[in-house]
Amino acid sequence: MTNEDETVSLIGSDKVQGSAVFDADGNKIGSIERLMIEKSSGRVSYAVVSFGGFLGIGDDHYPLPWPSLKYNVELGGYQTMVTIDQIKGAPKAASGEWNWADTTRTKGLDDYYGVPI
Amino acid sequence: MTNEDETVSLIGSDKVQGSAVFDADGNKIGSIERLMIEKSSGRVSYAVVSFGGFLGIGDDHYPLPWPSLKYNVELGGYQTMVTIDQIKGAPKAASGEWNWADTTRTKGLDDYYGVPI
Repeated sequence: MTNEDETVSLIGSDKVQGSAVFDADGNKIGSIERLMIEKSSGRVSYAVVSFGGFLGIGDDHYPLPWPSLKYNVELGGYQTMVTIDQIKGAPKAASGEWNWADTTRTKGLDDYYGVPI
Repeated sequence: MTNEDETVSLIGSDKVQGSAVFDADGNKIGSIERLMIEKSSGRVSYAVVSFGGFLGIGDDHYPLPWPSLKYNVELGGYQTMVTIDQIKGAPKAASGEWNWADTTRTKGLDDYYGVPI
């Protein structure tokens, strides 16, 4: 509670980066690589999650909408109810290939996970 | 525009961390250490700025409200209109001493910089 990088209501970006991501069953499926922040509003839109070595999908990293990740104290990381099949079928970013400027694709991502626009 | 960590509208948290901070005159006064993110809303509340070696205020780091920092393309970093005197007079965090859980203090910070609650 007295840490500099986390309180009840606030968390440091450097603490989120590298945090583990778990599926609904509590299995570790990846880790958070970075947060994508909307410049104008200052809101976190996506967490780019690296699934290297997990899921059998190689070194790919996929963006997940921030609201789909909830911190789970017992697991010590973020838990998502998004399924592995959903993730496998989602718009993804192979290393170096994701283009966030492609708003059609970003819009497609929001639609895919049912995030309200 | 095709970078993974920045687009016209989005920027990666890891790219913001370490970015230079300039004053109104364009002088470098520090660098961003981390972003403090509101867990519930996913909104960036503060940037913790390190002023080590600048301003003659030693190794201290101070939180600045995120809206007080604007990216300046020419400078290649974030510019704030907050003055050095304001920063020196603001609630600060000496290394290891800042307590974000102290909401009275956080509220005081918002009031100090005139951020609407």
